[in-house]
Amino acid sequence: MLTELCTTIGHRLSGSPQAAQAVAWGKNKMNEMGLENVRLESLMVPHWVRGEVEEAFVIHPVTKEKISLSICALGGSIRTPAEGITAEIIEVHTFEELQSLGEKAKGKIIFFNRPMERSKIMTFEAYGGAVNQRGSGAIEAAKAGGVAALVRSMTTAVDDFPHTGSMGYVDTVKKVPSAAISTLDANFLSELLSKEKNVKLHLQLSCETLPEVPSANVIGEILGSEKPNEIVLIGGHLDSWDKGQGAHDDGAGISHTLEAMRLLKELGLRPKRTIRAILFMNEENGLRGGKNYAEKHKNETHVAAIETDAGGASPRGFGVSTDSIRFEKIKRWESLFEIIDADRIKKGGGGADISELGRQGIPTIGLRVDPQRYFDYHHSDNDTIDKVNERELELGATALAILVYLLAEEGL
Amino acid sequence: MLTELCTTIGHRLSGSPQAAQAVAWGKNKMNEMGLENVRLESLMVPHWVRGEVEEAFVIHPVTKEKISLSICALGGSIRTPAEGITAEIIEVHTFEELQSLGEKAKGKIIFFNRPMERSKIMTFEAYGGAVNQRGSGAIEAAKAGGVAALVRSMTTAVDDFPHTGSMGYVDTVKKVPSAAISTLDANFLSELLSKEKNVKLHLQLSCETLPEVPSANVIGEILGSEKPNEIVLIGGHLDSWDKGQGAHDDGAGISHTLEAMRLLKELGLRPKRTIRAILFMNEENGLRGGKNYAEKHKNETHVAAIETDAGGASPRGFGVSTDSIRFEKIKRWESLFEIIDADRIKKGGGGADISELGRQGIPTIGLRVDPQRYFDYHHSDNDTIDKVNERELELGATALAILVYLLAEEGL
Repeated sequence: MLTELCTTIGHRLSGSPQAAQAVAWGKNKMNEMGLENVRLESLMVPHWVRGEVEEAFVIHPVTKEKISLSICALGGSIRTPAEGITAEIIEVHTFEELQSLGEKAKGKIIFFNRPMERSKIMTFEAYGGAVNQRGSGAIEAAKAGGVAALVRSMTTAVDDFPHTGSMGYVDTVKKVPSAAISTLDANFLSELLSKEKNVKLHLQLSCETLPEVPSANVIGEILGSEKPNEIVLIGGHLDSWDKGQGAHDDGAGISHTLEAMRLLKELGLRPKRTIRAILFMNEENGLRGGKNYAEKHKNETHVAAIETDAGGASPRGFGVSTDSIRFEKIKRWESLFEIIDADRIKKGGGGADISELGRQGIPTIGLRVDPQRYFDYHHSDNDTIDKVNERELELGATALAILVYLLAEEGL
Repeated sequence: MLTELCTTIGHRLSGSPQAAQAVAWGKNKMNEMGLENVRLESLMVPHWVRGEVEEAFVIHPVTKEKISLSICALGGSIRTPAEGITAEIIEVHTFEELQSLGEKAKGKIIFFNRPMERSKIMTFEAYGGAVNQRGSGAIEAAKAGGVAALVRSMTTAVDDFPHTGSMGYVDTVKKVPSAAISTLDANFLSELLSKEKNVKLHLQLSCETLPEVPSANVIGEILGSEKPNEIVLIGGHLDSWDKGQGAHDDGAGISHTLEAMRLLKELGLRPKRTIRAILFMNEENGLRGGKNYAEKHKNETHVAAIETDAGGASPRGFGVSTDSIRFEKIKRWESLFEIIDADRIKKGGGGADISELGRQGIPTIGLRVDPQRYFDYHHSDNDTIDKVNERELELGATALAILVYLLAEEGL
């Protein structure tokens, strides 16, 4: 299924034709495997497009050589003027450092170059520690008088791929363009800046935000035999960034979800409570699917919600956000996952799409997979099907099938 | 270190110039990091060479088209006559099936095509269940009157790479050549054989076994502060097959071992007992290094021996072969490995190089890493440095550094 999604549709950013194809594909898969109540729940999504042009280069102050840099627009960025922006570039590592520059930042392109911390064993922590540069870099750059933001890619890899991802603006601050630069070129640029003064960077982006378009969450169920109104939710997100094939992020979660349902159907299992699979739309740049679902279904009884959005590597267990009584109940099932080496049930977990449900008090659970390689690929042209190991992916689906069955049969 | 070993030396089969380079490289690394008693312990190793020619093709019985197959000689195989062997090919899945063929096997090339069992979660189990075809296929083929053995590659991947590995002969049975075929071509051949009769295969190999040559184990130590005569051994094997770069098998184990020692040195740790690192020679086709060490050091006191020879993926813990009292002692250290997610201490473990020590009654321990991808690369041109993730590799070295320190400080 993942090969099909990645190679016949490819990346599928919200609002794109590919996202619409993915919705139809997902619904079709659910029908094929005989899920019940297969349906689309429509919603509106943002429609940002990258456009034809994205380029950046520096002119070496001494040799006058033009040096191209590997960059891409961050999702949501405004475009530059057609002729681009040319300005001196200045490197910072924190917002505090930027603020301390005072007048020196004015008129400059602000280069945010704080790496994901290499010593963090859990890469998601390292991501969390660096991603504010991507999310708020443009705002902070503009507040300091900067004309654009260039952000070191959020990745554990040192290579030539720029990694995109969401960035934001606020109404009270001027909007300036924002792009990601590959880690290799970020290192190059940093070295250049340490040696030379008045390095000018030229940045040209043609991305833009178009009017919102209709899209949908894709939903299918195995109805409960005794308590069909009690729902165990399982899902991932169907949209991806417009880079690579969205294989790990989150094609893996989509195939995990569909395969877990297929396994239960193939085994002829119909637990007491309803299992509802959701392929969420627009996790990457708006979370409309998650928000729409939480609002629309707020009066239903959800036993728990499980999300898989950490890639397709070997499963290690689950992270669970709930009260201590429910946590201990799930923890007691650990031994059932030992056969597939996925028996680490830890506190704290969920996913962006089910975060609204969490705020409603519903227990949220995230599939924990080996996190070491995920950010090598994340949001880049490198997130392709050949980076996903079939056996590892299947084990993730198996772990989910076991948990979702237990929750639907035993309750929580 | 692993990049250096893989790219400046590359693969390093016992007896090859690269194996000699690797010995010098390993000794140099140990000296550089300030290990004590750095030395070579010399031994003789087999010297098998692949030669220039290895090819196989079938002539399609209907179209008469010549179809080349992706094959390689198995390590230790004799060569074919210079003009090759052309004979009808017959597919079997077990030795029993071959024996039941009776006269029908005579004069044929025997094609052993039982895959590694896909449903085995632990790939080493699947390997164990299929590898007798590689190890004894030539013997069984000859006993049945066959003229050569062609063995489905021992791999979890379905691709174009043939995977080599050791095979054996016995004095009482005629020697016939033996080669591995890629899984894709094994599938192709199987399908062809299911449709067509009298399919002939041409096999040509120029491999040969040359006289034995001198080589060495590489040894270095951190001497114990209180009980220097009690030894905790840690090692992997320096030799590899003559395919790819021996990155996972067992360059990973070599860099694990060296990096664990380097970490202890950098931290200035000198535990009570001696830690002895060994880069074993000739694990792949003779085990001379392991046997030589066990014999030469049989009167020394070994607390335990640890081997890392399962690749460079994320560590999950250790497999331990010892009595229940010692096992429980190690098991009580589990929580110390939780921070790097490697806290699964399970019964049963070791490694080929330390198997002789195990027979002497010494507790043997194997580093357990995620096993899902290992056999995709194992013994093939695909076992290259780009398949090893730096973060995963470092975590393996960290796990080893923790365990070897505990054993040397606390005893067992």
